[in-house]
Amino acid sequence: MRTRAVRPIAAAAAAGALVLVGATAWATSSDLTGNGDARRLHGDQTSAVRKAIDGSAARNVILFIGDGMGDSEITVARDYAKGAAGRFAGIDGLPLTGQYTTYALDKKDGKPDYVTDSAASGSGWSTGTKTYNGAISVDVDGDPQRTILEIAKANGLRTGDVTTAEIQDATPAVLVSHVTDRSCYGPSVTTTKCPTNALENGGLGSITEQLLNTRPDVTLGGGSKTFDETAKAGAWSGKTLLQQANARGYQVIGDAAGLAAVTKADQKSPVLGLFATGNMPVRWTGPLATHTGGAEAPATCTPNPAYSSTRPNLQAMTSKAISLLDDKHAKKGFFLQVEGASIDKQDHAADPCGQIGETVDLDEAVKAALDFAKKDGNTLVVLTADHGHSSQIIYPGTTTPGLTRTLLTADGKPMTVAYGTADTGGSQDHTGTQVRIAAYGPRAANVVGLTDQTDLFFTIRDALKLKSNAPAPWGQHGHH
Amino acid sequence: MRTRAVRPIAAAAAAGALVLVGATAWATSSDLTGNGDARRLHGDQTSAVRKAIDGSAARNVILFIGDGMGDSEITVARDYAKGAAGRFAGIDGLPLTGQYTTYALDKKDGKPDYVTDSAASGSGWSTGTKTYNGAISVDVDGDPQRTILEIAKANGLRTGDVTTAEIQDATPAVLVSHVTDRSCYGPSVTTTKCPTNALENGGLGSITEQLLNTRPDVTLGGGSKTFDETAKAGAWSGKTLLQQANARGYQVIGDAAGLAAVTKADQKSPVLGLFATGNMPVRWTGPLATHTGGAEAPATCTPNPAYSSTRPNLQAMTSKAISLLDDKHAKKGFFLQVEGASIDKQDHAADPCGQIGETVDLDEAVKAALDFAKKDGNTLVVLTADHGHSSQIIYPGTTTPGLTRTLLTADGKPMTVAYGTADTGGSQDHTGTQVRIAAYGPRAANVVGLTDQTDLFFTIRDALKLKSNAPAPWGQHGHH
Repeated sequence: MRTRAVRPIAAAAAAGALVLVGATAWATSSDLTGNGDARRLHGDQTSAVRKAIDGSAARNVILFIGDGMGDSEITVARDYAKGAAGRFAGIDGLPLTGQYTTYALDKKDGKPDYVTDSAASGSGWSTGTKTYNGAISVDVDGDPQRTILEIAKANGLRTGDVTTAEIQDATPAVLVSHVTDRSCYGPSVTTTKCPTNALENGGLGSITEQLLNTRPDVTLGGGSKTFDETAKAGAWSGKTLLQQANARGYQVIGDAAGLAAVTKADQKSPVLGLFATGNMPVRWTGPLATHTGGAEAPATCTPNPAYSSTRPNLQAMTSKAISLLDDKHAKKGFFLQVEGASIDKQDHAADPCGQIGETVDLDEAVKAALDFAKKDGNTLVVLTADHGHSSQIIYPGTTTPGLTRTLLTADGKPMTVAYGTADTGGSQDHTGTQVRIAAYGPRAANVVGLTDQTDLFFTIRDALKLKSNAPAPWGQHGHH
Repeated sequence: MRTRAVRPIAAAAAAGALVLVGATAWATSSDLTGNGDARRLHGDQTSAVRKAIDGSAARNVILFIGDGMGDSEITVARDYAKGAAGRFAGIDGLPLTGQYTTYALDKKDGKPDYVTDSAASGSGWSTGTKTYNGAISVDVDGDPQRTILEIAKANGLRTGDVTTAEIQDATPAVLVSHVTDRSCYGPSVTTTKCPTNALENGGLGSITEQLLNTRPDVTLGGGSKTFDETAKAGAWSGKTLLQQANARGYQVIGDAAGLAAVTKADQKSPVLGLFATGNMPVRWTGPLATHTGGAEAPATCTPNPAYSSTRPNLQAMTSKAISLLDDKHAKKGFFLQVEGASIDKQDHAADPCGQIGETVDLDEAVKAALDFAKKDGNTLVVLTADHGHSSQIIYPGTTTPGLTRTLLTADGKPMTVAYGTADTGGSQDHTGTQVRIAAYGPRAANVVGLTDQTDLFFTIRDALKLKSNAPAPWGQHGHH
């Protein structure tokens, strides 16, 4: 090991490494060169793991989805933001861990399609049924499959659906709607995109119309644009979806101040927070990967001016959703899903700073939920991804046949990120790798080992002791 | 779900899918389209996971390394060989799971180097000390760090080192030698490649010379070529390393029949099995990935004729090593490392069938060890990788800026594998992603959550209750 003026604590594991975005001075890592210096464990953790196993039922479940957050994406973000020996307080703070498979099915023959999209993957954990890419909680034949949020609601739980994307995007949509094509956001496209779902054809309606019927207590995200569309049929025909939401008692919120002012969310007055016309702005920006980027001077990430305090960030939305849904006096608890959506979207764009910032953003939200769960004692917190993505960490300063970018990390060292599945201007693609799943709280042991995304549906259902066939209360499925 | 003539058992999870290499008929998957059809769990596994946690000490440790076997490589192999809903009996059979970080250090400043090679990574778990790429169980200053095999031996355990690569390759070498450059296989290169280690300069000698001094009870793999080299200094100066091995009591074995005939391995007569001049032949072959391969007709893998019954395969080497090392009458147990080496090498070559065959090969070896451990009751089995690699599963039938190849899987469906870190004829590279670690047996809980590769050294040391400072017996470090 190196001769050192000050001997660091061996097990400190460089957790002190911290990135200040836009700052010129980087915190330095602890010395990692000596025997045991890079350890993450502090001796045998057998009893700690044993204690983390809790077979009791859960009162609440908070499910986090890092969209496209494969193990590679987690590592890219950790290396940059915390240093290689660093640790995310939220993402890395869930004690029980495993891997799960994410494959979709081919609509034509019902056999595996090895790379899933967010729609099929989300439908898998939302309903327990594997389906085809593009499907929103319908099976390979297009038949609706009941979602975990619908079932939770039918069992008397309060429910929430939070995302940094449009709330009609696949991951939030799989909880509240059933359409044959994920692009069926509003009534303007149902006839062409999902005719069997169109209200005017006797279907359940577009994603947004079904969302209003499913009526979670709390819905937060982007996607206000679709609410300007006008219903073509049914009781709200001729009205915009925003008019409908207001008329049906939703508290429609548009900014952080509005959300802060909300004190209650229930079936009488559900909260519908719409904080962007499309997806919410990302946290960090930086240079895209290019054909030469890996060999260029290491770049640093900078704050995105559009990510402003006038909009709630994911941590703020999560904390608010928890505080609105948590009612110690109520008989039943809650189910909440929170998506960090733009890890995926920035990975598609070959934007390493974009995807890293979104991972940091998600980490803070997970941390807030973990803090709640630890205090509460009856909350299962699960974190997983819907699929892996393109980004890979390669030897520093190198280039590939695809796109690369070198960043200067919290360690003050260059890290080169490669995107190899599409060329300049194209969309980097999902990958079929198994991904990490991690959990804390009652029934968390069900993420250990190798599971499938569809197992997650049953894990949550059974942790909450939900009856799958509980009758749907008013508003679900729009049959009213 | 689909209308089906015969309703499959819902939880069958398509485990019946089986690939017959070279066969024309593929086993078909069970129906995966219904609710719960794709589950891997059979209800709540809390008590099963709890039962898998064993805090007692281990008598034996068997450590498996899938070289370059990241989560993506595991999934590529499972999808092809077992189907997407399938399961590896060995690789997927270890009940406790986690992720670990693999980064190396920069020799110049001791700070993180985000992509490790097998030498630095192996040195990490072998010694508990992070080091630079190319280092074999020396720290960033080139100082030898005691290895887990040396410590196990000094504590009276029997030891083994098994690989499908040359036994001088990085992963097996980190257990038995200390050189500043992984290429220092034999005395012919020490002066140029690792002068401070050269025997003629008063060093510990080349990897092979140190291996002979460290004297594991069982050493099996390829790499006979280096044994033709002649020692330049010391007691064996002027003799080939093979002559030295024979003179020092090694049972030198060259084929499967020879290995089968061995009945005993101990310090008096250690077993040195050398089954190839270089690396051992791989199990499967198939078309390489190319710029157009993803869009070409799906290929199938075929047996490699050079992978023959005259050489023991990894499962056979593992089973034989266990049977030679396991002595119920002895006071102490054993430490054995087994490497599936060519997952990495075939991934470097953009050869999907090559890497898949090697993963299947490793799986069988892990299964054999698990069977032993379950019967034995006092054996910790750990499986991990030293680093991720390039291969990614992308949308079927597509191509990328890099290299791709589409294979027809056990499901009878196309799977496209992409290699994006080097161009045609180049070497696909390692990636910096965190990788899976899984374990069974006493102290297996120490792989759960996020750990670092260096934690593994301490996990094994403490599971076996080894004293790090036990005096080295005859032969270690060559100071005799």
